[in-house]
Amino acid sequence: MAGEAPSQRGRVVMQQCLSARLQVKPPFDTEEAEYVEISRGTVIYICFLKGADSSTVEKMAKATMNVRLSESENGKFISILDLPGDVLVVPQATLGGKAKGKMMQYHSNIAKEQGLELYNAYIEQSRKILDGHAKWKEAACTLKHGTYGNRQVLRMDTNGPFSHYFEF
Amino acid sequence: MAGEAPSQRGRVVMQQCLSARLQVKPPFDTEEAEYVEISRGTVIYICFLKGADSSTVEKMAKATMNVRLSESENGKFISILDLPGDVLVVPQATLGGKAKGKMMQYHSNIAKEQGLELYNAYIEQSRKILDGHAKWKEAACTLKHGTYGNRQVLRMDTNGPFSHYFEF
Repeated sequence: MAGEAPSQRGRVVMQQCLSARLQVKPPFDTEEAEYVEISRGTVIYICFLKGADSSTVEKMAKATMNVRLSESENGKFISILDLPGDVLVVPQATLGGKAKGKMMQYHSNIAKEQGLELYNAYIEQSRKILDGHAKWKEAACTLKHGTYGNRQVLRMDTNGPFSHYFEF
Repeated sequence: MAGEAPSQRGRVVMQQCLSARLQVKPPFDTEEAEYVEISRGTVIYICFLKGADSSTVEKMAKATMNVRLSESENGKFISILDLPGDVLVVPQATLGGKAKGKMMQYHSNIAKEQGLELYNAYIEQSRKILDGHAKWKEAACTLKHGTYGNRQVLRMDTNGPFSHYFEF
């Protein structure tokens, strides 16, 4: 596999969906699992690597909210803000993995506590950008997100996931 | 966003699934759409970049079939060969995209005809590796794949997509 780009601090995969459902609390004892759901929009898998900080979060939130990956009615690609569409953020530490032979190693991943802090900051900043965009706000779209550190039990229906990968 | 690693020839995202369904023929006139389905296994999104050739395909097939991303009953991570599990290959040219401002550009993507050739070769080689592995073969697992150049209408149910990204 090709060498890694220098000084990566975050990795993101974005997929478009018609609907998606994510478990945010696993079943426990007699309690049923809890889920969040979104309708048409984008699923954003995020992973922070060592060296990531608030400036990484800022770039990541700005880029993911503004990048034109969503197909409009006339076939043009527009941002999730302008679609306007729902957002589901999925913490996905596995994206930091690097293959060594047949095994995956996660040595570049940020420490869990810092990762959680940056994850929360990413959600806060993304929400701010979304809420600040009149078209998105008026459409009563929603931002939902997974629980950091949990297994991300996800179901998704797409009209083409149209997967994109980003490094920060 | 961070700079790209030099001499990338292919990009792959792998996600684990409990089941997945992919459209392989869109609806046309009075004909209904056609789909392929898999049960528990792995969804492999592949994209070839300029410079990719048969050696890229070989590395990609070997790596994706052997990498240990599938969770066994005792919580260990094993290959799709040893799970054993189903494989769904999804051509995903969008993975070759690079953001320029808010727009995506796909200048690194391989020409369509060459891409189709390498895509077919990847499926053939992966099938060979799978069929050559007694445990996989005996379990009557299946490899399914999308139609190159089509919209990849995908539905997926996971117990955690456990997304991984690879460069070749």
